[in-house]
Amino acid sequence: MAAQNSTQLSDEILEEAFEKMRLGAAREMPDQKTLKRTARHEAGHSLIAWLGGNPPLQVTIVGRARAAGRMEPERNEAKGNYTKSEVEQLICECMGGRAAELVFYGDEEGLDTGASSDLQQATHLAMRMVRDWGMTDDFGQVAIIADRGGHKSFDGPLAERIVETAERIVNQQLSRAINLLNQHRHYLDILATELLEKNRLTREDLALFLPPIQ
Amino acid sequence: MAAQNSTQLSDEILEEAFEKMRLGAAREMPDQKTLKRTARHEAGHSLIAWLGGNPPLQVTIVGRARAAGRMEPERNEAKGNYTKSEVEQLICECMGGRAAELVFYGDEEGLDTGASSDLQQATHLAMRMVRDWGMTDDFGQVAIIADRGGHKSFDGPLAERIVETAERIVNQQLSRAINLLNQHRHYLDILATELLEKNRLTREDLALFLPPIQ
Amino acid sequence: MAAQNSTQLSDEILEEAFEKMRLGAAREMPDQKTLKRTARHEAGHSLIAWLGGNPPLQVTIVGRARAAGRMEPERNEAKGNYTKSEVEQLICECMGGRAAELVFYGDEEGLDTGASSDLQQATHLAMRMVRDWGMTDDFGQVAIIADRGGHKSFDGPLAERIVETAERIVNQQLSRAINLLNQHRHYLDILATELLEKNRLTREDLALFLPPIQ
Amino acid sequence: MAAQNSTQLSDEILEEAFEKMRLGAAREMPDQKTLKRTARHEAGHSLIAWLGGNPPLQVTIVGRARAAGRMEPERNEAKGNYTKSEVEQLICECMGGRAAELVFYGDEEGLDTGASSDLQQATHLAMRMVRDWGMTDDFGQVAIIADRGGHKSFDGPLAERIVETAERIVNQQLSRAINLLNQHRHYLDILATELLEKNRLTREDLALFLPPIQ
Amino acid sequence: MAAQNSTQLSDEILEEAFEKMRLGAAREMPDQKTLKRTARHEAGHSLIAWLGGNPPLQVTIVGRARAAGRMEPERNEAKGNYTKSEVEQLICECMGGRAAELVFYGDEEGLDTGASSDLQQATHLAMRMVRDWGMTDDFGQVAIIADRGGHKSFDGPLAERIVETAERIVNQQLSRAINLLNQHRHYLDILATELLEKNRLTREDLALFLPPIQ
Amino acid sequence: MAAQNSTQLSDEILEEAFEKMRLGAAREMPDQKTLKRTARHEAGHSLIAWLGGNPPLQVTIVGRARAAGRMEPERNEAKGNYTKSEVEQLICECMGGRAAELVFYGDEEGLDTGASSDLQQATHLAMRMVRDWGMTDDFGQVAIIADRGGHKSFDGPLAERIVETAERIVNQQLSRAINLLNQHRHYLDILATELLEKNRLTREDLALFLPPIQ
Repeated sequence: MAAQNSTQLSDEILEEAFEKMRLGAAREMPDQKTLKRTARHEAGHSLIAWLGGNPPLQVTIVGRARAAGRMEPERNEAKGNYTKSEVEQLICECMGGRAAELVFYGDEEGLDTGASSDLQQATHLAMRMVRDWGMTDDFGQVAIIADRGGHKSFDGPLAERIVETAERIVNQQLSRAINLLNQHRHYLDILATELLEKNRLTREDLALFLPPIQ
Repeated sequence: MAAQNSTQLSDEILEEAFEKMRLGAAREMPDQKTLKRTARHEAGHSLIAWLGGNPPLQVTIVGRARAAGRMEPERNEAKGNYTKSEVEQLICECMGGRAAELVFYGDEEGLDTGASSDLQQATHLAMRMVRDWGMTDDFGQVAIIADRGGHKSFDGPLAERIVETAERIVNQQLSRAINLLNQHRHYLDILATELLEKNRLTREDLALFLPPIQ
Repeated sequence: MAAQNSTQLSDEILEEAFEKMRLGAAREMPDQKTLKRTARHEAGHSLIAWLGGNPPLQVTIVGRARAAGRMEPERNEAKGNYTKSEVEQLICECMGGRAAELVFYGDEEGLDTGASSDLQQATHLAMRMVRDWGMTDDFGQVAIIADRGGHKSFDGPLAERIVETAERIVNQQLSRAINLLNQHRHYLDILATELLEKNRLTREDLALFLPPIQ
Repeated sequence: MAAQNSTQLSDEILEEAFEKMRLGAAREMPDQKTLKRTARHEAGHSLIAWLGGNPPLQVTIVGRARAAGRMEPERNEAKGNYTKSEVEQLICECMGGRAAELVFYGDEEGLDTGASSDLQQATHLAMRMVRDWGMTDDFGQVAIIADRGGHKSFDGPLAERIVETAERIVNQQLSRAINLLNQHRHYLDILATELLEKNRLTREDLALFLPPIQ
Repeated sequence: MAAQNSTQLSDEILEEAFEKMRLGAAREMPDQKTLKRTARHEAGHSLIAWLGGNPPLQVTIVGRARAAGRMEPERNEAKGNYTKSEVEQLICECMGGRAAELVFYGDEEGLDTGASSDLQQATHLAMRMVRDWGMTDDFGQVAIIADRGGHKSFDGPLAERIVETAERIVNQQLSRAINLLNQHRHYLDILATELLEKNRLTREDLALFLPPIQ
Repeated sequence: MAAQNSTQLSDEILEEAFEKMRLGAAREMPDQKTLKRTARHEAGHSLIAWLGGNPPLQVTIVGRARAAGRMEPERNEAKGNYTKSEVEQLICECMGGRAAELVFYGDEEGLDTGASSDLQQATHLAMRMVRDWGMTDDFGQVAIIADRGGHKSFDGPLAERIVETAERIVNQQLSRAINLLNQHRHYLDILATELLEKNRLTREDLALFLPPIQ
């Protein structure tokens, strides 16, 4: 009668932490090490956005509710469509947080579970480039309508090709983000330090130490 | 407690813009650059249709409701069936907008998210050529009945062959559209300029500066 | 705010035409070119049936209701089963309309959307030869029961083999139909001309100018 | 407005005939040619059963209800399980009707739609040999439980292997049936002739001219 | 009007027999030949269990209800987990019945439909070794969670690998069972003879002529 | 009438044992051999956790309810995200129980059914590394969204790649666990012996004989 399923708690720890995030009950202040990592992550998103001509309205590392770190982009109401390079820039911004962690913590320690929703968004945009917007050579100009609404049972040769192409796109933008952050490491350091110190920076704050937007 | 999912807004921007289109609340006037791009896109659709003997009733770039740019084709009530070359012409017209953007903005910048529904329609027609109308060598004269109504879980060897064939058809018509627009670049320029200036052109307006319909 | 989805009408044209057919509201008389094509198409069905020993009861090109052109075959009440060659003859009759269009209009212009339901029926019969009646070498004498009622999610190696075999069968019968029509081109021309002139021919009418049934 | 879908009747003929069978309204007597074919078909089933030691209780070619031809086997109440060779004998009996048609009408004309349910039963038994009874080398002694109740979406590598193995089994038994009928052609001829003459034969009738059961 | 679906009864025989088993109406005594086969089958299960250190509480060949033959194993309440070799022993016991039939009746005649549920249980245990218990090299220590509850539409590369591995495991245990029975043929013969004579043997009865449990 | 499905009980034994665990009715005390195995299993989990800097709050081998053996880890409320090496450590802890059994009982006897939920958790974490967290080279930084909520019908090329990668990760951590336990065999022996003797050890108890946490 010995069921040795004792480590099932390891998984519960993760679930509980995620649950807490979802409920937004941030009663407990994260430790300094965690805050520093968040500051660097958000600095990555923000610098990539800034360099790409999309200066955020503000960026924070300790929020009132759910998401602790957060970069708030400007919304351009008059903008309807996005060109291929504009979508690629959005993907690059998504990957900016992980890129910063890789730059600061190295190839192994730079990977953590916190980038999960960033990856999901980047993948979603990359898949739409392939599937809906005809922006890759792999599928040409075809819109794969069969894919609509049928995600659940979609695992065959088409799904594989779509995922492989999306993978290539996302990896390219991650590489581009890493290169940009290395090139502008000075600004990345300042941004992360300022964020850790002030918790919240507006676009005006950012303009004080970042290069002029092109 | 640091969830760094801050760029999720990038995706929301897109969704919001699409939502606005769907609701038709065009309260805000698009900027001049966007209007110019729309004019060129619609000029592409219209010129391909005109050259193919399907002169549109009218074409606009700022509509009252949802779709800003729009080419309204004539409806031929007495026409029942379409030959292979007529269906190919319809696909070519669908791709005329993107073709014009590629001609004006180049291979990279010519790709944008606005062509999404054009691609979907072209793909739909190409798939019917393969699946329903026996118009390709790839599937011969067979009508793939299994495909009816079962789009959602359709991802296997048959779906792959259908998509590959549709892809080839759509790409051929895009190339044809680009060639036609390059050959008649003079008319394309006039049409786009006129549209940008007048916002709306009827068939009679078009007949003033386009070549006689063959 | 520029959504350039203007050619979506091209697809609506098709749908509308199909809808009209479905509702049977044939208020508008088709033009002479369309009538001529219909006459040739129905002549193809009828001649293949006649030569195969299945003389139709009547054939028309302008009906009261929905289907304009129509060949009405005789129903043999006492006939229960069909041999392989009889089923092949039925498929050949299905393909007779498209065969006639290919003979009259050539390999490209001979393909049109009107043959859609003919193809579907031919495919259905060919698939039953493979799947239910053990009439091909590809699947031998096996009845693929798994296929029953599960069309929707059927796209794997078995579906592919079935479709490929059905494709071969339908293409063979199309070739046979073309050969037969070319051999009896004289009768095909007379039949099409008579149909275009009289709109409706009974078996007795047909017997006046077609060869005796074997 | 010309929809040339006129041969759709060819399919309706088949459906109507099948419907009639289903309802059992055999008001119209089949013609002599059809009766002869039925007699030969049923003679095939019966002779294979007889030679295999399963003498039928009776066999008819014109029934009161639905199925015109019919061989009624004896039911052995005390028999629970079937050995591999007994199941193979059952499959051979299923294929006996088609085997007789192939013997009498040749490789092409011997195939007709009437054998559809025979094929289905033979296939069902062969699939159970593979899937449930561990009677083939291809799947060894494994019972493929995943297959239970999930026929509809079952089309992958396992389904293909099962169908291929079932195909081999059914084809072997068809060959065996043909060989047996050729070896005992004399009895087959007598049985078919007697059936055509008397419409119904009991086991006692059969024992008068068939060899003693081993 | 000739539907030659006369052998459909062959399948009904099987179904009826199965139905009867399910309902447990064993009013009719099986014949001596069947009883002998059952005795040998149950002797196989029992001897394998006995030699493996799992002596059954009792074994019968004519039951009051549903299952005629039946070996009742002891239930060890205090036993929670099973090692790999203990699970293999359970599979070997499952295959012991068929193994005995193969030993007594040979490679062909030793296969019958009665072993169906034995095969199913052996397969189920083998699949759990692969999928849940990390007991094979083929899937290593991974638990394929995707498989849970989704049997119906599970037919892809993973399902194929799982089935192939399960197949290998079951075949190995069948071979082991055959070897063991051949090695202890003397005991197998006695056990089968005693069972046929007495219909029911308890563990105490078995201990009188079987070797001491190790 | 002989249904030889007598060993179906072998499977019932397993089910019953599992059921009992689920209901938590541990009225019967496990035997000494089982307790020893449980002690060694839990010692494996605990030592891996301790060496990885995650000292458990307590560990037991006989619980009041359901799970007999159990290691209770500390919950770090302030911890939000996990780096790649932290997730790998969690997987290593999951595999620590089986690793200990392999060390004590050898490659064959070290495998038992009790590790089932450990394997499931390790696999779940490994799959999230692949699918959600971009922590492997195989799928790069892509988040395979199609996988969400659609486990049931997920068996195609993508599922296979995910499972293969997860398999590699889990096997690596099992090897690492085995190596660690072999290196610290002395501590493992003490821990297992103490657990067997005292049934329950707190972190303070563990600190008395385990090396200081790094």
